[in-house]
Amino acid sequence: MSLPTGASRASIVIEQIAIGDELLRGLVVDENSAWLGREAASLGLEIAHRQIVADRIDDIVAAYRLATSRSTWVVVSGGLGPTVDDLTAEAAAVFLGESVALNAEALEQIATWRAARARLDKSAPASLHNLDEKQAWLPASADVLMNPVGTAPGFRVCSGGTTFVHFPGVPREYKKLAQLYFLGPLRDAMPVEGESGGRTPISRTWKFFGLTESAVAEHVNALFGSGRLDELTLHYRAHFPEIHLTIVSHSADRVAALERHIIQDSRIRHRLFGEGDATFAGALIDSLVERGETLSVAESCTGGLIGQMLTTIPGASRAFMGGIIAYDNAVKTALLDVSPEVLGSFGAVSRECAEAMARGARAKLGTTWAVAVTGIAGPGGGTADKPVGTIHFAVAGEHDVHHRSVTLPFERDRNRLASAYGALDLLRRQLALSPQLPVRPTA
Amino acid sequence: MSLPTGASRASIVIEQIAIGDELLRGLVVDENSAWLGREAASLGLEIAHRQIVADRIDDIVAAYRLATSRSTWVVVSGGLGPTVDDLTAEAAAVFLGESVALNAEALEQIATWRAARARLDKSAPASLHNLDEKQAWLPASADVLMNPVGTAPGFRVCSGGTTFVHFPGVPREYKKLAQLYFLGPLRDAMPVEGESGGRTPISRTWKFFGLTESAVAEHVNALFGSGRLDELTLHYRAHFPEIHLTIVSHSADRVAALERHIIQDSRIRHRLFGEGDATFAGALIDSLVERGETLSVAESCTGGLIGQMLTTIPGASRAFMGGIIAYDNAVKTALLDVSPEVLGSFGAVSRECAEAMARGARAKLGTTWAVAVTGIAGPGGGTADKPVGTIHFAVAGEHDVHHRSVTLPFERDRNRLASAYGALDLLRRQLALSPQLPVRPTA
Repeated sequence: MSLPTGASRASIVIEQIAIGDELLRGLVVDENSAWLGREAASLGLEIAHRQIVADRIDDIVAAYRLATSRSTWVVVSGGLGPTVDDLTAEAAAVFLGESVALNAEALEQIATWRAARARLDKSAPASLHNLDEKQAWLPASADVLMNPVGTAPGFRVCSGGTTFVHFPGVPREYKKLAQLYFLGPLRDAMPVEGESGGRTPISRTWKFFGLTESAVAEHVNALFGSGRLDELTLHYRAHFPEIHLTIVSHSADRVAALERHIIQDSRIRHRLFGEGDATFAGALIDSLVERGETLSVAESCTGGLIGQMLTTIPGASRAFMGGIIAYDNAVKTALLDVSPEVLGSFGAVSRECAEAMARGARAKLGTTWAVAVTGIAGPGGGTADKPVGTIHFAVAGEHDVHHRSVTLPFERDRNRLASAYGALDLLRRQLALSPQLPVRPTA
Repeated sequence: MSLPTGASRASIVIEQIAIGDELLRGLVVDENSAWLGREAASLGLEIAHRQIVADRIDDIVAAYRLATSRSTWVVVSGGLGPTVDDLTAEAAAVFLGESVALNAEALEQIATWRAARARLDKSAPASLHNLDEKQAWLPASADVLMNPVGTAPGFRVCSGGTTFVHFPGVPREYKKLAQLYFLGPLRDAMPVEGESGGRTPISRTWKFFGLTESAVAEHVNALFGSGRLDELTLHYRAHFPEIHLTIVSHSADRVAALERHIIQDSRIRHRLFGEGDATFAGALIDSLVERGETLSVAESCTGGLIGQMLTTIPGASRAFMGGIIAYDNAVKTALLDVSPEVLGSFGAVSRECAEAMARGARAKLGTTWAVAVTGIAGPGGGTADKPVGTIHFAVAGEHDVHHRSVTLPFERDRNRLASAYGALDLLRRQLALSPQLPVRPTA
C-alpha cells in the first residue's frame, strides 16, 4: 500500500461510505462500520466521517466528491455483488471520469474461488455463474484486491490525495479485506512509540452503576475543575443501567491523576464496578471466585434475569450454583419456605418477603450468599401504597441478611434490568465491606 | 407540524444526521436510525441520506449545510445531553446564524421532569442539577419538543425549505420523540387511500423460528415463482434466532394470496410462530392462557434466560409460575430430583437428564407443562462425544415427556439464546399437536 512509513496520525483522515438501500431502510444495521471504528481506535486513529448512501449512481458519486474534499482514506462497503442494484464500480468510474472494463485479474480471482468451492462442495458449480462476470467489471484504473473468503473482489482507486478502498458488505468478507488491505498496511505504516508524531494515546474506561450520566459528570468536574481537564478528552456513554466514562489522553500523568481521584473520592468510588472490558456480572463472579464463595438467587419480578446475567459469563459455574424463579406466590412458599403469614401480613412485595426468599435460597442451594428480589415491574400491579417500580432486594450471608428497597421510574424492561443490577449491587457492596475469608491455607 | 395535509410522497426527502464520536468509534451501533428507517418504510417513505458526524461544531455545521441542500426533513439525533461533548444545539445555532439562549420552556420541562422523578424516588433531587441548565440552551428560533421520558428536551428549527427535528440519542427517548414529533405528524399528513398520490401500501410481517433466511426465501420463491412476485416488495430481516419476512404491496389480493400459501405450505407453516407485533414468548403465553394451562422451567445452560424471556411479557403470571435454575449438578439432584445414577451414567448433558429435569420441575411447581434444557453453551466444556453446542430439550406434560437434541454451531451467547427458543419451541409445537382442554364449562 502506498502509505508512507512514519506518516503522522494527524495527516490521516479516514471516512467510511456504506452503500445500500437496506441500510437506510434499517433492514441491516451497519455493524461493519462500527467494527472498523473500534479497530481504528485501537491504532489510535479516529474515523472522521461516515456516509450511508442509497443504491443510486448520483448519490454514490456525490458521496465520493464530498469524501475527496475532506478525507485521505475512504473505506467504501457494499454494492459489489452481482445483482442489478450493485452499482458501486459503475459509480466509482463515473466519479473518476473513466469507463468500467472487464478486469482480467478480477475474473481470474472469481474463477479460482468457484473452483475452490467446487472442490469442497460437490454440488457447487466449478465454472463461472451467469452473474459472476458482472463483479469483474471495474473502473479502468482500479487495482484488484483479492478476496480469499468470497466471490466479489475488492478494488482500490485514487483521486487527488485520496485513496478509496472498496470491500464487499458481507461482514465476514468486509472484515477480512479490511484487515488485509486497510488495517494491516496502516498498522505497518504507523510510527513507533517515541518517534515524532507517534504516541498512541492512552484510553481508559471506568464503569459505574447507580449514578446518572449527569451525576458522574458532576463528580468528575468537581474533582478536576474545568481548567484541569486540559489534555484529557472525556466521553460519557449510557449503557443502561451502567454509565461508562472513557478518557483519552496523551498524558499518562493526567490519566493517573484522574484515576487516583476517582478511586479515592467517597461519593463515587463505591459506584465504580469495573474498568475496561470488565462486565458487571463478570466482576462479581471474579470477586466470589477469588474469595472461594458461592452464590444462588431467588427471583420474583426479574423472572430469571439475574441468573441469565450471571451465566452470560463463561466459567460462571465456579461461583454460581443456580436458583429459584418464584414468580407465583405458591412457589415462594413451596420452594423458598416463605411463610404464608409473611405473604398474608406484608405481601409478596415487602422487605419481609425479600429477606425470607434470600434465606430460603441460601438454605436450599447451600451457598455462601443468596440474593433475592421481589417487586412490581409494571405496567400493571401497582397500588397507592406500592406503586409500579417498588422493588425490594435482600442478600443473605452467613451471619445476617441485608435489605434495600427502591422505587424505580422506568417502564417494565428497564425496571426489571435495574432490579437485577440492584440486587447484585447489594451483594457487590456487601463483599466490599465484609472481610475476605482466607481461601488458601497460609504457608 | 407544518407539513401540509395531502403532501405527495415525492416531495418529501428525509435525511438522518446521527451525532456522536461513540458512533464513529463503533462503541455504539446506530440502532435508532435503522429503527426509523423501518418505521418510515411502513409509511411508504424512504430515508434518502444518512450522515454520521463527530462531536465537532464544524463537522455538524457542514452536515446541516449538506442536508439543507438536498432534503426537506432532517432528523438529527444525539448531542443534546448535559456534558461538554454535547454540542448539537450550539452547532445548530452557528448554522442558523443565531446565538443560543436559555429557553424558558425547555427549562420548565426539565424542572417538571426532575420533580416527577423525585416524587417516585425519594433519594433523587427535586430541583435542577448543576448541569441540567445546559440542556435548555437552544438556538433562539427553536421550538421546544417536550420529552415525556427523559431530561433533555428535543427541538425543531427551520432553514429555507428544510425542517430539522432534534431528538436525544438514548434509544427510548429517541423513539418516543420520533413518534410524537416526526412519524405521527407525517402519518397524519399522508394522503388518504384512493386520493391522488395516496395509497398507503399494505405491510405484513410474518415471523419464523427454526429456518435460515435463505431457507425462508427459497420457500417463498418456490411458492410463487419469480414472475408472481410482481407488485410485492419482500424484505427479510434476521433477528437472531428469528427470521422476519415483511411484504409491502399496494395489492390486497397479492398479500392475501401469499398469506394463504404460507399458512398452507407444510414445509413452512410449523415454523411460523407469529405475525406483526407478536413475540415468540408472548405467543406462547397467550396459547397457554387460552388453554387455561400453566408452565414451569428447569434451566441448566440457559441459566434463567427462558424465565427471563417469558417474564418480559406483561401478564406472564397468568401462565408462568416459575422454575428452577439448576446450573450446578448438585442443584439438579437436590431441587429437581434428578437421580445421581442418571448424572453418573449419562451425564448432565443427556436426554435422560433433560427428561428428569422436566419431570422434576413439573412435579415441584405443580404446573400443566414444564420445559427443561441442559447443554454445553461453550466456549469450554466440549468433548469429542459431546461437542460445544450439544443441547438437550425436554417437555413434560400430563401424559408423557418429549425430547429433542441439537448441535448448535454458534458462540456462547447465541447458543444460549437458540437453546431457550428451542426449548420453548418444543412446547409450542406440542401445544399445536395436543387437543385443547375445555377451559370454560360449555353452556
